[in-house]
Amino acid sequence: MKKFYIAKSRRLRSTPYTSRIENQGVTAYTTYNHMLLPASFGSLEKEYFHLKEDVQVWDVAAERQAQITGKDSAKLVQLMTCRNLSKAKIGRCYYTPIIDEQGGMLNDPVTLKLDENKWWLSLADSDIGLYAKGIASGLALEVEVSEPDINIMAVQGPKSFKLMEKVLGKKITQLKFFGFDYYTFQGNKFLIARSGWSKQGGYEIYVENREIGQSLYDELFKAGKEFQVKPGCPNLIERIESGLLSAGNDFDNRDNPYECGFDKYIDINSDINYLGKKALIKISREGINKKLMGVLIDTDKIELTEEIPLYSKDNIVGNLRSATYSPNLKKVVGIAMIKKEYWDKKTPIELKIRDKKSKGTLCDLPIV
Amino acid sequence: MKKFYIAKSRRLRSTPYTSRIENQGVTAYTTYNHMLLPASFGSLEKEYFHLKEDVQVWDVAAERQAQITGKDSAKLVQLMTCRNLSKAKIGRCYYTPIIDEQGGMLNDPVTLKLDENKWWLSLADSDIGLYAKGIASGLALEVEVSEPDINIMAVQGPKSFKLMEKVLGKKITQLKFFGFDYYTFQGNKFLIARSGWSKQGGYEIYVENREIGQSLYDELFKAGKEFQVKPGCPNLIERIESGLLSAGNDFDNRDNPYECGFDKYIDINSDINYLGKKALIKISREGINKKLMGVLIDTDKIELTEEIPLYSKDNIVGNLRSATYSPNLKKVVGIAMIKKEYWDKKTPIELKIRDKKSKGTLCDLPIV
Repeated sequence: MKKFYIAKSRRLRSTPYTSRIENQGVTAYTTYNHMLLPASFGSLEKEYFHLKEDVQVWDVAAERQAQITGKDSAKLVQLMTCRNLSKAKIGRCYYTPIIDEQGGMLNDPVTLKLDENKWWLSLADSDIGLYAKGIASGLALEVEVSEPDINIMAVQGPKSFKLMEKVLGKKITQLKFFGFDYYTFQGNKFLIARSGWSKQGGYEIYVENREIGQSLYDELFKAGKEFQVKPGCPNLIERIESGLLSAGNDFDNRDNPYECGFDKYIDINSDINYLGKKALIKISREGINKKLMGVLIDTDKIELTEEIPLYSKDNIVGNLRSATYSPNLKKVVGIAMIKKEYWDKKTPIELKIRDKKSKGTLCDLPIV
Repeated sequence: MKKFYIAKSRRLRSTPYTSRIENQGVTAYTTYNHMLLPASFGSLEKEYFHLKEDVQVWDVAAERQAQITGKDSAKLVQLMTCRNLSKAKIGRCYYTPIIDEQGGMLNDPVTLKLDENKWWLSLADSDIGLYAKGIASGLALEVEVSEPDINIMAVQGPKSFKLMEKVLGKKITQLKFFGFDYYTFQGNKFLIARSGWSKQGGYEIYVENREIGQSLYDELFKAGKEFQVKPGCPNLIERIESGLLSAGNDFDNRDNPYECGFDKYIDINSDINYLGKKALIKISREGINKKLMGVLIDTDKIELTEEIPLYSKDNIVGNLRSATYSPNLKKVVGIAMIKKEYWDKKTPIELKIRDKKSKGTLCDLPIV
């Protein structure tokens, strides 16, 4: 497929790590929350195997924070998500589908409760800060909504634990999955969560001071030599195999959280108040007619730029939304929105890429 | 400067014209409202001179529409902008700064009143649809907020008038600047506005049916041969010289509409109701301390990816936010946020790009 350059400008914001990753060999960017997000360092496949075996440091500053503070902050955060946050604890991360009044998916941030009146929504690619501002203004809530200059770097991969222990000390080994706490490096405090956009284990460092963050970035590479550390980025192969959904790719506003498989993050029974609750109650009663599933296709190449139909004979089974070749499974792996009639996974499927037909099967998520 | 590829995916949506412009030689993209926006066809300078002399067809589908319909639609649109729309007419376009409750700039769409209860906000790059949904939910307004699949193509340049007359008939020559009306091509109706993101004259065609839009796109190139028609895109040189501001580049949420020079689009005296009115009244009383101005710099090359300081001796004069070399003026032209002490334009300025110092002057906008 033909390649095109990205035209940089102030509007597609650089990060504190941009000059570093450009020296380290980044070759492609995507944009995410009006910011550059590295997409490749030359070979997705090599990066995939490296991520699963060693440790990578990622510039994921584009995971911007919608910060919500003030007396009504908990109320506002709850209004935006169908997940029950009434018992949310300080020091914990919560995966939170954000929906509109029709129950359509707007985003799927990891939400951090920093304090009784301070929350961060670590966002996928849409301006949820504007949604929050709109609701707050409409209801005259006592909150402040802002985007602080926080620039996350992620440390991902099985050797991330040893690397982080070496740089930040033994205490960090006690941090549990989706917990966060504060750790000191060279006299400076960092909020670090055990989270990240891979299933290979690791941490996300919420950097609040650019210069000190750059020092930590450099130290991770210095200390990481013995662990074969490399720069990296969210890996398309790994995230599809792991079933990590991508807002805007795998779902959008025309999909509801049930269709995305987020049932365990939906509360329609308690008395919490959120926008879209009525819509979800109705959807829950009526049932859904499509849902996200995994796909395996017998071909060795695909580059998706829009959703493409999957067929069974002449009938449309659903739409493929993310896909890439997996050197692990020797097949194309994908995530698709599939019609109810085909959920049993028995139907062989077909897809056509530039007049070439390929065969495949449906499967559950995660794929691996 | 090193170049990087753009990693395409469904999330960075393609347009109905993408395959056409890729056959026609597009070389670089930016992203805008989660969509691909062409940024160059190989030479900004050649495209600049061509745009000023002939006619170009642009894929600006990324100017997405926030559609607001329903009984309370006029109320909701007014709540988001400081411009008085109480006397807005059907068939007219309105440049409308969108602000938040603190008076910070969120977007600067062209707003079209299609009907008493139907509005389109033709957006710059931020999710104002989410802001609208938030306000509507908070106030329980009777509106529907959506993003219809409208994909604008622009026809820009001095020969756009002759080309459009040839393809759409004599009636279109009567359309006044910032007016819109409906025109027929091969039996299909198109909403066309006399507007566009250049000051070289032209039209924007709001395509509501992808296939019919593609036919019109092809016809414009067929009929346009005698006018030297070429594919193009918003041109960085032309837009800076013309003082056409770019949201996210020249201003953001930390700037208010007075600082952007939007005084004539601000109404703080009538009884209209919008979010941020109190803030703007206060700002108006206190006066502003910075504003956007033009900059001319004696150098022949610049590539901005973030704002950079402008100096007078050791004092910071302001920040340069957009800049490019103008082959017309044989200088770098730019748009900068300038401190009040330097508005008189008498102070020579300096800037440093990779240890190389250049000298320049401030000027009014538009520059040419």
